[in-house]
Amino acid sequence: MTEPLPAHLFDEATRVTAGDSRWQGRTSPDYWAFVGPFGGVTAATVLRALIEHPQVQGDPLAVTVNYCAPIAEGPFDLDVRLVKANRSSQHWCVELSQGDADAATLATAVFAERRPSWSHQPAQMPDAPPFSEVKRHPDTNMSWTRQYDFRFVEGRPALGASATGEPHSSYSRLWISDRKPRKLDCLSLLSMSDAFFGRVFHARGELVPFGTVSLTTYLHVSREELAAEDITHVLATADAKVFNRSYQDQHGELWSPSGRLLATTTQIAYFKA
Amino acid sequence: MTEPLPAHLFDEATRVTAGDSRWQGRTSPDYWAFVGPFGGVTAATVLRALIEHPQVQGDPLAVTVNYCAPIAEGPFDLDVRLVKANRSSQHWCVELSQGDADAATLATAVFAERRPSWSHQPAQMPDAPPFSEVKRHPDTNMSWTRQYDFRFVEGRPALGASATGEPHSSYSRLWISDRKPRKLDCLSLLSMSDAFFGRVFHARGELVPFGTVSLTTYLHVSREELAAEDITHVLATADAKVFNRSYQDQHGELWSPSGRLLATTTQIAYFKA
Repeated sequence: MTEPLPAHLFDEATRVTAGDSRWQGRTSPDYWAFVGPFGGVTAATVLRALIEHPQVQGDPLAVTVNYCAPIAEGPFDLDVRLVKANRSSQHWCVELSQGDADAATLATAVFAERRPSWSHQPAQMPDAPPFSEVKRHPDTNMSWTRQYDFRFVEGRPALGASATGEPHSSYSRLWISDRKPRKLDCLSLLSMSDAFFGRVFHARGELVPFGTVSLTTYLHVSREELAAEDITHVLATADAKVFNRSYQDQHGELWSPSGRLLATTTQIAYFKA
Repeated sequence: MTEPLPAHLFDEATRVTAGDSRWQGRTSPDYWAFVGPFGGVTAATVLRALIEHPQVQGDPLAVTVNYCAPIAEGPFDLDVRLVKANRSSQHWCVELSQGDADAATLATAVFAERRPSWSHQPAQMPDAPPFSEVKRHPDTNMSWTRQYDFRFVEGRPALGASATGEPHSSYSRLWISDRKPRKLDCLSLLSMSDAFFGRVFHARGELVPFGTVSLTTYLHVSREELAAEDITHVLATADAKVFNRSYQDQHGELWSPSGRLLATTTQIAYFKA
């Protein structure tokens, strides 16, 4: 007899127990951020509840997660609702809450039949040396960041460099992998789409209070196409266009090593500076 | 006695009648698209219901609209729900439905207090001759497009040019104004963020079946800042990164003539080609 393999921490952190319209999950200390779970894992947990839902059809196409309030350590409920379905797409709404409190997270997701069509990728994959040739970024003291392997090709955060004077570039290009390699699926891809350091940290060269308010990620490949890539890391880029009145934007891309654009992502985040 | 000024068609098209959690609106023949109302006006109608809501606080920051099904000509209900509020932000969920049918549109919106902060705009306004010096694009036979004045600086659609061979560029840069000039506010800005022709039309040089599935727009200025610009047109850019398995992305920017980034937008859309 062989022991079952221990689950990957990411799979443990995003585990949900089945319900019909109501699912349960639990925060993981392994993916903790400033005041709650890492938003990428929360998004992936929501998506996992949908993917494991008996009524789900098609592939995840678009996910928007609004982070309404911090999630406290411990269990949470996922209220899952299929708002509208037709032959080719499904629209879902998910609310995450704890006890009798208001929702802490409000998410929408679109699933779609990814039928073969004309295909064209105007975007170009950015240059980068292979993953294995780029040095891993040193650990920070935030638990979620230690679950990833960040390999900066350009725009590594230079915190403490200078918080005054001219802003630094807010652009980053880096390889991202689960620290313990895990075959990329739509769950980890969604999580990685939130796995950038705050653009304001880069621009100002210092940590400031920061929190993602709303994240939207589009997946540009079917689950079958993603599985066929058979990869454990992506080349990711992120940048910001504007910081104004306590909010910044961020937009990013996630590429397979073979040069395929797997996902695009955007978010708006609060900062105090 | 003077007659009251006739309302702008945009204000008529986005009119809502007050309710508490349930509001009413009506589609407008002036803003009709392929199989339902122009999505920008639907988004603006949702936002108007929130802005006129007695409980609303702060400025609209992020709006996501999922177009679940076509809206039929006639009246519709808006089910408006404040999901979570705190001192600095509000999270709203809005469902648009007709009669007893499932929701046709599912939207979320974040409002926030736009407190003064460090400000920085890494993005550069693209070059363009002034609005008055660019030729207006000829009318199409779709009613909503006739409510706008499109002045292409680059990437005007060349439909019928060639549907075969190498794809054309999917990038456009253009001035957009309400046809009858109307002072830009957050409603018309949101609507304009959906006022691009399908990128697939540009890339393929032909019209094909097309529909926006999910739209996300971030507003980067407070309503006060927007009012201070005192403008009736924006410089807008849009491009696509990938067309695959019946879906395309689009990302865009909307600039004030003074060089301020007012909004960024992204959407995922269905196409058949």
